[in-house]
Amino acid sequence: MAEKLKIIPLGGLDEIGKNMTVLEYGKDMIVVDCGIGFPDEEMYGVDLVIPDFSYLVKNAAKLRGMFITHGHEDHIGSIPYCMQEVNCPIHGTAMTNGLIKLKLDEHRLSDKVKLVTHKPGDVVKAGCFSVEFIHVNHSIADAVAFAIRTPAGTVVMTGDFKIDPSSTDGMTDLARFGQLGNEGVLALLCDSTNVERQGYTPSENTVAESLDRLFKGCDQRIVVTTFASNMYRIQAVLNTAQRYGRKVAVTGRSMENILKVGQELGYLKVPEGLIVELGTIKNLPKNKIVIVSTGSQGENMSAMYRMAFSTHKQVDIMAGDRIIISASAIPGNEKAISKIINELYRKGAEVVYEKSEGLHVSGHACQEELKIIHALCKPKFFIPIHGEQRHLQIHGKLAVQMGMNRRNVFIAELGNVLELTAKSCKFNGSAPVGMVLVDGYGVGDVGSVVLRDRKHLAQDGMIVVCVNLSGQDGSVITGPDIITRGFIYVKESDELIEEMRQVAMEAIDRCRAKHVRDWSAIKSAIKNDLSGFLYKSTKRNPMILPILMEI
Amino acid sequence: MAEKLKIIPLGGLDEIGKNMTVLEYGKDMIVVDCGIGFPDEEMYGVDLVIPDFSYLVKNAAKLRGMFITHGHEDHIGSIPYCMQEVNCPIHGTAMTNGLIKLKLDEHRLSDKVKLVTHKPGDVVKAGCFSVEFIHVNHSIADAVAFAIRTPAGTVVMTGDFKIDPSSTDGMTDLARFGQLGNEGVLALLCDSTNVERQGYTPSENTVAESLDRLFKGCDQRIVVTTFASNMYRIQAVLNTAQRYGRKVAVTGRSMENILKVGQELGYLKVPEGLIVELGTIKNLPKNKIVIVSTGSQGENMSAMYRMAFSTHKQVDIMAGDRIIISASAIPGNEKAISKIINELYRKGAEVVYEKSEGLHVSGHACQEELKIIHALCKPKFFIPIHGEQRHLQIHGKLAVQMGMNRRNVFIAELGNVLELTAKSCKFNGSAPVGMVLVDGYGVGDVGSVVLRDRKHLAQDGMIVVCVNLSGQDGSVITGPDIITRGFIYVKESDELIEEMRQVAMEAIDRCRAKHVRDWSAIKSAIKNDLSGFLYKSTKRNPMILPILMEI
Repeated sequence: MAEKLKIIPLGGLDEIGKNMTVLEYGKDMIVVDCGIGFPDEEMYGVDLVIPDFSYLVKNAAKLRGMFITHGHEDHIGSIPYCMQEVNCPIHGTAMTNGLIKLKLDEHRLSDKVKLVTHKPGDVVKAGCFSVEFIHVNHSIADAVAFAIRTPAGTVVMTGDFKIDPSSTDGMTDLARFGQLGNEGVLALLCDSTNVERQGYTPSENTVAESLDRLFKGCDQRIVVTTFASNMYRIQAVLNTAQRYGRKVAVTGRSMENILKVGQELGYLKVPEGLIVELGTIKNLPKNKIVIVSTGSQGENMSAMYRMAFSTHKQVDIMAGDRIIISASAIPGNEKAISKIINELYRKGAEVVYEKSEGLHVSGHACQEELKIIHALCKPKFFIPIHGEQRHLQIHGKLAVQMGMNRRNVFIAELGNVLELTAKSCKFNGSAPVGMVLVDGYGVGDVGSVVLRDRKHLAQDGMIVVCVNLSGQDGSVITGPDIITRGFIYVKESDELIEEMRQVAMEAIDRCRAKHVRDWSAIKSAIKNDLSGFLYKSTKRNPMILPILMEI
Repeated sequence: MAEKLKIIPLGGLDEIGKNMTVLEYGKDMIVVDCGIGFPDEEMYGVDLVIPDFSYLVKNAAKLRGMFITHGHEDHIGSIPYCMQEVNCPIHGTAMTNGLIKLKLDEHRLSDKVKLVTHKPGDVVKAGCFSVEFIHVNHSIADAVAFAIRTPAGTVVMTGDFKIDPSSTDGMTDLARFGQLGNEGVLALLCDSTNVERQGYTPSENTVAESLDRLFKGCDQRIVVTTFASNMYRIQAVLNTAQRYGRKVAVTGRSMENILKVGQELGYLKVPEGLIVELGTIKNLPKNKIVIVSTGSQGENMSAMYRMAFSTHKQVDIMAGDRIIISASAIPGNEKAISKIINELYRKGAEVVYEKSEGLHVSGHACQEELKIIHALCKPKFFIPIHGEQRHLQIHGKLAVQMGMNRRNVFIAELGNVLELTAKSCKFNGSAPVGMVLVDGYGVGDVGSVVLRDRKHLAQDGMIVVCVNLSGQDGSVITGPDIITRGFIYVKESDELIEEMRQVAMEAIDRCRAKHVRDWSAIKSAIKNDLSGFLYKSTKRNPMILPILMEI
């Protein structure tokens, strides 16, 4: 039997984020992207979510390289965790590698991992694969798609992209997609994030125009907050400030970082003297200042948050300040952003944030742009990626509308193994996948049991019942003592706590009367009785921990 | 000194929900609305938020009545809690009182509280106040505004409203607002919810048109989910079903309730034979069925949720079903709704939910409608209500744009006392206000301490350290035993737990060596040492509970 090309999504399907895809052929394997996911609201205390790397570990000998489309967290964030388990060269563009390097430094992995920098047009050999870098537009500089030559045929992976004909660094390389289509594309794996939206995503240029409108004639201080990773946007703010004779001060760690990296790598052109120290702006007139800040997603303790709530050491928002929020809310962040906006209004600031103001554009392709890619690539098989179930399904329908046979569309689940030959594609088997939770230094030590307990504790708090029992006859020597946290306000609940003591004591007495000496049975009795009593009297269900000690 | 009219907002400012306003003059006091607020994501385990009623309790002797604008939870939800503390007649329209009665029944208060039903146009005397009911459009039937005659002048309170000229039960009574304006309005208290939106809110009729488009020619089963309280919407679904020869089955408790109450009170016209039992629909062809369901906000365990996740006892979603989500997400519910939509797609259903489909309209007035009310009422003083800080501020600006003197706009904080005469309005003093948290049967027993503990427990779980110390010399008799919940997966953490035991033991030994016998000092030592050790080794900060028992 001839070898087949295997495509295995390890992340990025049925979810937004955690993007990671394996391509395997015979003794060779490569990985595209290695991102983090974000914990949902039920994952109490979890910092981030990474893919399960066990398939890579098991096949480490085959691993020829990792290829990264761009430098957003959901495409690079898991690299340090992955590189602690396997090792291979990482290939990316200059900007992408700049951001990866910051991560590797932080995890002290820079010496161990080889980072290789390429330009669009470059072709990289990795085992039987050869990977071509193709320029695409996205909300971060230096993003690429990949055309991956395999013995079974060419696979095109778009990464995150949109088509912006007036982008300052050139439009997505549609000509190249077209050539590839003419040569024959076996499979297309395409970004599905914006597939629900009709039409086209507006150009990043429209934001620059909006900024101009808001700077023009403004005689107040201006504060702009946006995504630190969007260098185009930051450049536009710098240019607009320069045009209107304002100095720029920067606040927030990731914004300071990006300014440094962006300048070093030549992605940001900063006119001399434009940037000033935050501490010096008090000496400037209000209409000569722009503050560029992190916190566009309402992040707690971000620079914007601290300025709004007067806990920033250097800057406080003043009445009359014009605050420009050049971002839209990532789902789940609406309330946090709203909280900051309310506080800014309370201080008498003018806040500009409405969609209608044209202060943000998406980084992802809408329906018409997706159709262009489908029409250019003319793939034999189509595998929608980067999306929740609904995005994948709608993208599948879009492909069918574009003339593709319904049976050539493959909506995969994470871990599904897709086997391709030059003529066929089918599901065959599966690889281990899952969410590995990162909490502090712990990777994977928080699982469903711990999360269930955290949720239980969060809902109704907990009660510890401490008793010392006699080793001889099981009688109570001291206790039961009741300690509660997160259940009720103890200082006003003496009576209830005394009742709980009684209930626990009766449970122990009952066990003793029945000659029950098995401690787990006594614990169960205490737990059940107390739980019933508390539900009846408070309609709450705290966690109950009976602790028995033998004397 | 002559008496003054006091207006005191007890809820509904700087927040969406919990609406409640006090009007007081001399020995008379009335209350308008008595709603609940919804806990934010940091209020772990809290079911709902109600206003602080202590100002009412303190002035109970003055209380002449409570007036309710409409039957939404954020205007009636706190009534049962309030009526346990004070008692007065409650005045509302038929639909509003129907919904209040359900609540009073549930809390066994129906016998104690007098509900008085009125129609638009009615005028109710309450002490020195007389309150006129004025018909307005909103997303629930039988909503009213109030014109309140006081010795100081007329106060107009809009309640929640919009202006829908093609509403099936007639447009908001603009003529009456105009007459009041001509007679002279002292103060306007106006809904600010949609003040950020330009233009007009579309008519509820447009939703009926969209439903028609989606029913027409559909040969599949149709499932519609919407807000149970929107009788207009439900009537439109019934009418459309009738028109296309489909039977209607209803699922979800609140939807069943509303169908019953709506029919009893004559707000829903249900053609005979249209409604069928859910259990019988399996005998009908697919194109003869509409299922009307709760769950438009993605509520866990709602009928829609259960149908999507195959835990509904009677109905499962099938490939081809057309699911119509006739609602938009209330901020904070986006992810829950998205989860259901993904599951529906996974089952092969067709889901219609986009804004562009015209499946929902707001119940609140946009800018142009607000301007109409301002222009008609021509109030001397303006107090924006029902909104977060930004809504209040923007509404204030809108009033100024409409020609009002900036000094006549009063953006109040909860509890501010506004004192009005026929010619003046000013802030003077404050009343106690706040959020009272309801958790199970407990009202107010969960406060900041309990919430802080719940948050701490939710983040990193907890550790109990149990030690028996000798009463004679403070030496360790048994323990320290370590019990954790929500911290780490215990079965794979033997080593860490043993280290924790060591750290605790060393802390105790150190205390003993220093002849420390004060138990709280020993507890602190255990807590500090363990906490430092754990942060260093895991970067987590679980709650640590040392329990010392003396033998």
